[in-house]
Amino acid sequence: MTDKPSTTHHLPATPDTVHWGYFSRTLSPVLTIASGESVSIESITHHANDDYERMIAGDAAAEEIFRWTRDAKTMRRRGAGSTEGPFTHGNGEGLGVHLLTGPIAVEGAEPGDIIEVRVLDMWPRPSANPAYAGRFFGSNPSANWGFQYNDLITEPKQREVVTLYELDMTERSVSALYSYLWTPQTDPDGIVHPTIDYPGVRVDHSTVTKQDGVLAGIKVPARLHFGTMGLAPAEADFVSTIPPNYTGGNMDDWRIAKGATMYYPVAVEGGLFSCGDAHATQGDSELSGTAVEISLTGAFQFILHKKADLPGTVLEGLTHPLLETPDLWSVYGFSVPNYLSELGPDPQQAILSRGSLDDAMRDAFRKLRRFLMTVHGLSEDEAISLMSIAADFAVTQVVDANWGVTGSIRRSLFKGRQGAVR
Amino acid sequence: MTDKPSTTHHLPATPDTVHWGYFSRTLSPVLTIASGESVSIESITHHANDDYERMIAGDAAAEEIFRWTRDAKTMRRRGAGSTEGPFTHGNGEGLGVHLLTGPIAVEGAEPGDIIEVRVLDMWPRPSANPAYAGRFFGSNPSANWGFQYNDLITEPKQREVVTLYELDMTERSVSALYSYLWTPQTDPDGIVHPTIDYPGVRVDHSTVTKQDGVLAGIKVPARLHFGTMGLAPAEADFVSTIPPNYTGGNMDDWRIAKGATMYYPVAVEGGLFSCGDAHATQGDSELSGTAVEISLTGAFQFILHKKADLPGTVLEGLTHPLLETPDLWSVYGFSVPNYLSELGPDPQQAILSRGSLDDAMRDAFRKLRRFLMTVHGLSEDEAISLMSIAADFAVTQVVDANWGVTGSIRRSLFKGRQGAVR
Repeated sequence: MTDKPSTTHHLPATPDTVHWGYFSRTLSPVLTIASGESVSIESITHHANDDYERMIAGDAAAEEIFRWTRDAKTMRRRGAGSTEGPFTHGNGEGLGVHLLTGPIAVEGAEPGDIIEVRVLDMWPRPSANPAYAGRFFGSNPSANWGFQYNDLITEPKQREVVTLYELDMTERSVSALYSYLWTPQTDPDGIVHPTIDYPGVRVDHSTVTKQDGVLAGIKVPARLHFGTMGLAPAEADFVSTIPPNYTGGNMDDWRIAKGATMYYPVAVEGGLFSCGDAHATQGDSELSGTAVEISLTGAFQFILHKKADLPGTVLEGLTHPLLETPDLWSVYGFSVPNYLSELGPDPQQAILSRGSLDDAMRDAFRKLRRFLMTVHGLSEDEAISLMSIAADFAVTQVVDANWGVTGSIRRSLFKGRQGAVR
Repeated sequence: MTDKPSTTHHLPATPDTVHWGYFSRTLSPVLTIASGESVSIESITHHANDDYERMIAGDAAAEEIFRWTRDAKTMRRRGAGSTEGPFTHGNGEGLGVHLLTGPIAVEGAEPGDIIEVRVLDMWPRPSANPAYAGRFFGSNPSANWGFQYNDLITEPKQREVVTLYELDMTERSVSALYSYLWTPQTDPDGIVHPTIDYPGVRVDHSTVTKQDGVLAGIKVPARLHFGTMGLAPAEADFVSTIPPNYTGGNMDDWRIAKGATMYYPVAVEGGLFSCGDAHATQGDSELSGTAVEISLTGAFQFILHKKADLPGTVLEGLTHPLLETPDLWSVYGFSVPNYLSELGPDPQQAILSRGSLDDAMRDAFRKLRRFLMTVHGLSEDEAISLMSIAADFAVTQVVDANWGVTGSIRRSLFKGRQGAVR
């Protein structure tokens, strides 16, 4: 393990510092910081209950956050949906599933500004169960929202399978431990979950059959990142965490790694940054619906860029998330770029059937063209030629309702350009 | 320049060794080789006439191949379309545009076998015009089949723009020289080409206005590759080179670089390998419709794998192109995997409106799943979990009618797996 960076603040994950399944402009900040300050933020994976013994037991904060008995449910609302029963799935209806830590307000942030988030470091949260002390575990469900779900070739079809992985931080690799077929799980309120349709339901391991030895001998390099980071949108009080949006959110891009910087447009006062949905590793597409979902702590530095200061910088005209790594700038094309304002009276339902790579590619093209024209001063013809010969478009994800295409251009292309914005 | 590898055979580009715009089972091989032999193959870009002075003048072979006067057209048929006039665009109707060298037959190759093609090296063809002697030029048209064509924001809309690039082999980088807006060009037979609708029409530079200084200071790393390599399909006598297919063809993947190996299913006796459409560099998507189109010579080794020998190798069950690099295996998802047999009586027209990344992603998923299950012995559940956490899906191209998604898995994942196929 490397030394963890010292940060101005530490934000533990507790029932008071997390919210589940939604971004919200109505939340009071759990921490308010000045621009330039840094925060180490604990996150706990919303899939921890896929294996309670390895990912929750003995961890006081996780135990409390996930506590749910017939008499008590610490985190009642899970999702942006209804909070008035009777429920189909549960309070919040699981319209949004990610357990996020935050929100953090940046002093002075106003709509039109940009908040820069530098990813200083990330490290996994060890198991607190003495039987597994110090080890790191994550879960990869092949879920009903995965790209494969209606296209399986072996029986039983339309199955969901959870594969448990262990992260080795010495080798920085991930290996499978076991898997099980999802069976209907009954929550403490008596609602049966025939599929993975509500977050944080504890899987009763006496009802599933574990298969050992899966993916034997296969090691996957770690790509630690937070799948979900972003600011609160302005369009609704409660916004599902599932579809990524102009303020960021569930981007699910493994390129947002240590050393990367994200820029997010501020939509509400203070910005209200939250993060979670951490991943030990993921491929471009996140095909099965999830990555290796793991609990990480991240150290981030936050820098506020006021609207008036943006011209002449890479942030000029930015109305959507932008990634900057030592090598790349990346923009994120979405199936519906601003779905909260584009899809009529019930956009959070409407977006669920709008996933399209073709539309996301269109959006990625337009965003990268704008970036090259506005920031790098290229004509449209120059931008298009350069994109064709030098920009790389990747399938970010095909599982978050608002499917994504990452469009990347290498920063090194511009190093000989006079007056280039760096 | 590095030393060029010595090869068993050399295949120059001459009017007798090239064919234009189509693959064909009816062509007699221009060379027949034994398995294991190697060939250096000259290719000349079909975009050379975008700048005759830099890319054709003084090059006897190129001059002869591109010769087209009122009285003589060396390469009459260009495309898989009609050869009976009157023509809309010209003989072959430009249904297929790539100038290919070949075909090469591999002795003993029969349908059901696989031909392995190892890319030993590639080097550019120097300008033979004394004014530019020894320099390397390529063309990047932003064309009517590009992803941007109906989505331009500056006037005049629906324009085509040609950008000329120079390849510096010392730095191995590409820089723009100038650009021009396409203006209607009249060919020697009197047909006017208001857009780039027929290959090899010489652009009369007195009719265009060159803009110098475009993309000033910007250098793009070279990614030398052949955009089109593959075997003759069995389904039709003349098959357009534009849509990639199960026998390969216009894959347009820059990963097929020096050191890479491609595997192609044999559909007709001898395989009938042809290649061309070489690129100095390209991004994932080939957004504008073309890469930096350049004339390259490639050195390739060909190895025949008989059908009976495939089980237990990476080629078991392979019915489509497969890429193997030192780092990756990649499969190619297409909008319509086998369009020649799937799209009814006129598949070569039908495919032109079927480009879809969503469909290509579906096909890439299925092909990679099959590869992991058949070759690596994974269960479907193992394959899907591994794809989600470790496979990367990229946008190969959105401009070749049959749009593509490259699905890649790292070979290193399997190095600790017992009995793994390498």
